[in-house]
Amino acid sequence: MAIRKLLVANRGEIAVRIIRAARELGIATVQVHSAADTDSLAVRMADEAVLIGPPMAAKSYLNIAAILKAAADTRADAVHPGYGFLAENADFADAVVAAGLVWVGPSGDAIRVMGDKVAARVAAESAGVPVVPGSDGRIDDPAQARAVALAIGFPLMIKAAAGGGGRGIRICHDMEEFDRLMPQAAAEAKSAFGDGGLYIEKVIERARHIEVQILGDGARAIHCFERECSLQRRRQKVWEEAPSATLPEEMRARLCASAVALAEAVKYRGAGTLEYLYDDATGHFYFIEMNTRIQVEHPVTEMITGIDLVREMIRIAGGEPLRLAQEDVRLNGHAIEVRICAEDPAQNFKPGPGTISGLRVPGGAGVRFDSMLYDGYTVPPFYDSLLAKLIVWDEDRASAIARMARALDELQVGGIATTKPLHQALARDPGVRLGDFHTRWLEPWLEQNAAALAAEGGSA
Amino acid sequence: MAIRKLLVANRGEIAVRIIRAARELGIATVQVHSAADTDSLAVRMADEAVLIGPPMAAKSYLNIAAILKAAADTRADAVHPGYGFLAENADFADAVVAAGLVWVGPSGDAIRVMGDKVAARVAAESAGVPVVPGSDGRIDDPAQARAVALAIGFPLMIKAAAGGGGRGIRICHDMEEFDRLMPQAAAEAKSAFGDGGLYIEKVIERARHIEVQILGDGARAIHCFERECSLQRRRQKVWEEAPSATLPEEMRARLCASAVALAEAVKYRGAGTLEYLYDDATGHFYFIEMNTRIQVEHPVTEMITGIDLVREMIRIAGGEPLRLAQEDVRLNGHAIEVRICAEDPAQNFKPGPGTISGLRVPGGAGVRFDSMLYDGYTVPPFYDSLLAKLIVWDEDRASAIARMARALDELQVGGIATTKPLHQALARDPGVRLGDFHTRWLEPWLEQNAAALAAEGGSA
Repeated sequence: MAIRKLLVANRGEIAVRIIRAARELGIATVQVHSAADTDSLAVRMADEAVLIGPPMAAKSYLNIAAILKAAADTRADAVHPGYGFLAENADFADAVVAAGLVWVGPSGDAIRVMGDKVAARVAAESAGVPVVPGSDGRIDDPAQARAVALAIGFPLMIKAAAGGGGRGIRICHDMEEFDRLMPQAAAEAKSAFGDGGLYIEKVIERARHIEVQILGDGARAIHCFERECSLQRRRQKVWEEAPSATLPEEMRARLCASAVALAEAVKYRGAGTLEYLYDDATGHFYFIEMNTRIQVEHPVTEMITGIDLVREMIRIAGGEPLRLAQEDVRLNGHAIEVRICAEDPAQNFKPGPGTISGLRVPGGAGVRFDSMLYDGYTVPPFYDSLLAKLIVWDEDRASAIARMARALDELQVGGIATTKPLHQALARDPGVRLGDFHTRWLEPWLEQNAAALAAEGGSA
Repeated sequence: MAIRKLLVANRGEIAVRIIRAARELGIATVQVHSAADTDSLAVRMADEAVLIGPPMAAKSYLNIAAILKAAADTRADAVHPGYGFLAENADFADAVVAAGLVWVGPSGDAIRVMGDKVAARVAAESAGVPVVPGSDGRIDDPAQARAVALAIGFPLMIKAAAGGGGRGIRICHDMEEFDRLMPQAAAEAKSAFGDGGLYIEKVIERARHIEVQILGDGARAIHCFERECSLQRRRQKVWEEAPSATLPEEMRARLCASAVALAEAVKYRGAGTLEYLYDDATGHFYFIEMNTRIQVEHPVTEMITGIDLVREMIRIAGGEPLRLAQEDVRLNGHAIEVRICAEDPAQNFKPGPGTISGLRVPGGAGVRFDSMLYDGYTVPPFYDSLLAKLIVWDEDRASAIARMARALDELQVGGIATTKPLHQALARDPGVRLGDFHTRWLEPWLEQNAAALAAEGGSA
């Protein structure tokens, strides 16, 4: 079914991104919004806007009934969920389809399978994709646990089988520590979750976070190469690149082929990302999880391939088969994205709302700015702190870093502290320039550079 | 000699463009400026700024002595002339070199040869490049004139050999008209220029303006494909594309090869553009002239090739050989540039200065904005009306036009009338969408659409 009017069930820069893609396809847009976002750029840009609830997301951006009512009232025929909020909510996907609307994303069932870490792990193993070595399910017997630990090797993590959100995780470096912590972990799991079952997984100590972008139409899938997002703070990506700074070509080919195999195995439809840990000391990679939606960092892939991923998502959802063969997807140059957030790096990334003034957007060759900002806009305190993404492309990585530094110098966001000084410092850092980093590199770097960041201040 | 500090001998968006390229190369910048440009974006962005004279260009941007003094005072070691002003002044090029500075452009001698239309025509013919059929020099004898006219065919132009700027040009459609106008033209040439000598040239009635970008290092040259700039008003380019909307592949190869042959024949060093008329009815192309400098519309070439032309100019001037082989230059997708000028299309393009407010810069995938604008900036009345260039890239021409329309809708420039409504109308026009135009297409279109443009108004 060809889409004629698309409801954007999200906010911020990704809502603006979706509206732009729809407009270029000649598709009208409906922007649903909370009472805190009445003056948002997305609301101003969309053809129609519908207030769906109060600022609290649970009553607006997570309010399935209100969103479906807005779609019915405006006669929208499709829903794009963006990322976050309801983007990976299988019940919402099903409800959209049940209401006779097009869901711009994979089916509810695909979200269920790939969104469940254990089910996704099983699917990956079935498709021949390596996963992080682990106990392949719960362990209740201490003797079995020791045998598994020996087989996996140290360091390893003990996790509560019934747990989540990082609770109850213990890291063991040898068998002595394992023997000591295992009973504690079981007791704590029992008391915290009512279930003493445990799960063991190898710790990849110096891993890079590498992810593969895929597009599928249900019948076949293609990859759009990889992104590297190893610079993270509290598991949040801070600086993202495509391609990876150091991945050998042969490894790139294997990683991307594994992602296509897994996507085709689950008959994936839409845009998705398979996340991996890559141990560049051993050359091993391990599937971690799949994101069944568009990701924040998708523009770096767009810059190196020329493919408009959001446009392709909408086309696939509208019933078109994939227009691209794998050999049409070419990797060209290097792209970097940094997240400009309403957080003050001089004050331990304290988030702070405020009213934007003196906005100066960087321009010129190879510079893209995806933003929710305009002068006079008041950033509300209720949501994620991401304000804008600055993306640059250049012919190679060193040039792209120089261009990023230049564009960051041009960017001015007054009235609010942002993470710009962090990115300026990263662009100057010799380790970043060498690409010599891993997922645990940034946090100690931030501690070492705290004084310099505090002196620089978060105001841009 | 490696350049360490570059003086920018220009203003406006091209000065900003040059500063950006220099900064990415780690080169410091000196911006010379008139008293009217003290608050310009280029002055704010450069590392140093030097006031060189009053607003009138003759006393500032054309003031060679003042510019050379500024270079000496700031210890700049190179000069980039941009386009316009002194960019094609061979004496300035020589003076820069005589002062011991690097000139970012071809030698004074190359500018002299290729900047002279007759000398350039001879050079082109020597290199086997077709030129517009004409009398190959001056004609004084009426009988000889008739013979040449018969050989060339009608329609043709009679020009004063000593004339210029379009003065004394007569168009003849047949021999009767030729016989009648020839004596008048000779008499007028004699009285206007003191020389009755004439020159005859064929009129290419429905020609496209196609130009080839080249880069040379003195030893060899490469082309970076063509641009089409057929949409012109009063011989000023209005909307520019790369590649051409309709050029057949075989013709593209011949045109580009002819440009490389001519550039290599004159041992060209730097960035240059060979301009051609292309008659798509007959498939003939004719060399018109060469621009021995960077052009306003260079970004469309950058978007389809990924080559930063200004960066390459600076590298070549610094003594580096061309880094690219011809086969490294690949044509990817389609790019369009429109010129956002301080002119009101609703009032016959009357230029109007003013103070910028409510600036909203378009963003997102495939959008580039090269501009001299910021909120609160007062556009001075002394110079060219070009304020900004909006450039888009997409995978094909139809998508690029849709993206241009989307980006134009996002662009807001308050406080001043601009040519944005003209470009919005062009992006919607069926003829533009078909690519079915030539160099004389836009002016009658403007007459036909005058009422609609007047209704829309020039305020964005």
